[in-house]
Amino acid sequence: MSNVYDEPMRRALSLALMGEGQTGRNPIVGAVILNSAGHVIAEGFHAGKDHAEVVAIKSLATIPANSTIIVTLEPCNHTGKTGPCTQAIIDAGISRVVYAVNDPNPVAAGGAQRLNDEGIEVISGVLEMESRFANRAWLNVVEKKRPLFIWKIAASIDGKTAAADGTSKWITSESSRAYVSNLRRNSDAILVGTGTVLADNPSLVPHDELEVPNPLRVVLGEREIPKDSLVFDSRAELLHIQSRDFIALIDGLLEKGIKQVLVEAGSELGTAMLSAGLIDEMMLFQAPTLLGSGTNFIGDLGITSLDNRLKLEILEHKQIGPDLFTHLKVGI
Amino acid sequence: MSNVYDEPMRRALSLALMGEGQTGRNPIVGAVILNSAGHVIAEGFHAGKDHAEVVAIKSLATIPANSTIIVTLEPCNHTGKTGPCTQAIIDAGISRVVYAVNDPNPVAAGGAQRLNDEGIEVISGVLEMESRFANRAWLNVVEKKRPLFIWKIAASIDGKTAAADGTSKWITSESSRAYVSNLRRNSDAILVGTGTVLADNPSLVPHDELEVPNPLRVVLGEREIPKDSLVFDSRAELLHIQSRDFIALIDGLLEKGIKQVLVEAGSELGTAMLSAGLIDEMMLFQAPTLLGSGTNFIGDLGITSLDNRLKLEILEHKQIGPDLFTHLKVGI
Repeated sequence: MSNVYDEPMRRALSLALMGEGQTGRNPIVGAVILNSAGHVIAEGFHAGKDHAEVVAIKSLATIPANSTIIVTLEPCNHTGKTGPCTQAIIDAGISRVVYAVNDPNPVAAGGAQRLNDEGIEVISGVLEMESRFANRAWLNVVEKKRPLFIWKIAASIDGKTAAADGTSKWITSESSRAYVSNLRRNSDAILVGTGTVLADNPSLVPHDELEVPNPLRVVLGEREIPKDSLVFDSRAELLHIQSRDFIALIDGLLEKGIKQVLVEAGSELGTAMLSAGLIDEMMLFQAPTLLGSGTNFIGDLGITSLDNRLKLEILEHKQIGPDLFTHLKVGI
Repeated sequence: MSNVYDEPMRRALSLALMGEGQTGRNPIVGAVILNSAGHVIAEGFHAGKDHAEVVAIKSLATIPANSTIIVTLEPCNHTGKTGPCTQAIIDAGISRVVYAVNDPNPVAAGGAQRLNDEGIEVISGVLEMESRFANRAWLNVVEKKRPLFIWKIAASIDGKTAAADGTSKWITSESSRAYVSNLRRNSDAILVGTGTVLADNPSLVPHDELEVPNPLRVVLGEREIPKDSLVFDSRAELLHIQSRDFIALIDGLLEKGIKQVLVEAGSELGTAMLSAGLIDEMMLFQAPTLLGSGTNFIGDLGITSLDNRLKLEILEHKQIGPDLFTHLKVGI
């Protein structure tokens, strides 16, 4: 079903995505304002301070009569770090509110009702699926009380992450590694096990050197990390959870307000998280090379028969430089 | 470098491909005839009887003055099952011959020279790379004295062809299996080891039930095959090479005039052929599922370090139904 508001909502959605990695505990949200002729006259997205609706409203000196605001999430109805967006919309004299996803957060919900009570026309559910997907990390925290975990894997096309002698740098291309840098930038935290720190001494920061804070580095495992490890450098905060307990991990992440975690773990931790039902998505980079022997990217899942195979859904699939990239959802 | 003859040559090439699997020992060839205004007035391809040039010429009652014939391979200059195409072109009064690939077969070569001697303008090398690729199986036989071997693999995305208990039907989707049926149709022979026959009892025929002969079924290995195996049915010829010797295999295939072999072998035979440098290409179907344990599609290649990895080149890459399909060339 196509809707007259699909196109401006698509624009609001792409604005929302510009805030990825910058909104802390909050959802990503984008908004555009249309005048009575349906033309976009203002835009805004949440980048950690003002909410998207407020950014768009503030950008205009005056709001024309019969304006419509298009927003990817139901406007909030509570006073947190900022005032309620419903009030800002009412004060601006906006006539119609079109949004994509209902706010499931009990504290902030009720926005649509409030706007309706004020005589503002409210339309919901426009591009809901796409907007839910864009905000799936935040929705995961609200609905499942845990962050979204995305397991990133770099392997040969026969599924090996390292050769028999342990060499693994670099299986995939520079293009793929640049892509991973962007994935890090759009994540709230990067997770590895102590084994990866001890074996590879990774820095776990994006390579873009932007002036915004880098994502939290999280190391899980009981072993001590050498003090000169790169994860201790000043480029990002480090959280070492000295435990193998996933409850402790989730509690630690929620406490820090983490919504989306890029899991850059090896086979052992990745397989354990997958077996525990904690891996939501996988991002698989496959180099067009064969190793034959070496380390499989995934270990024993306790699956012995084809009937019990773990089904995935392909979300996206493309070539990146010489490599293949597949973004998969776990479970269908 | 684009050429005025690129477009008709592309058409000739797509005609040539219609003959795949039907030309026996011969190359696939397509031809189109252009009138003096450059319009296509006739088409032909080799389907096992008349050569492409002759098919196109015969389709016209009279050949207009100043016609050009576009053909994917240098016209042959010898009398085999049919007369030389050069003579047919000369007799037809065609003014210009444009072809893609020189004929490397010493018996049939010399066509361009002969045409030139008759005062016909000859242009060569148009879309040569694409045309060589389309005829790579035949060129392989002429130049390397062995058929082209394409290894087809159906695996989970973690590279398993069977679960721990041996179950393997069906890892990939019906769409992928229909695609494999087409690959069989376009091959001259289908190769498996005795192990696959004993374990899976495959029929190794295309599922399309066309009225043309099915590709040769080839089983390699010393073990006896039970008389009630499907490979013995009447739908296609069977060649059982009771040996593990690849020389015997190649000799047997060349004797039968086989140019292109779809290798539907398991890990053991596939890995052995790859190690022996006999796998030219791989066609990998990956289902979006994980098994964790089970049989890897490839075994030990003797590669112990990342530096010695076997490099592949991606020729084609797409989704087929829910699965991923990657066509790879071995070596770059």
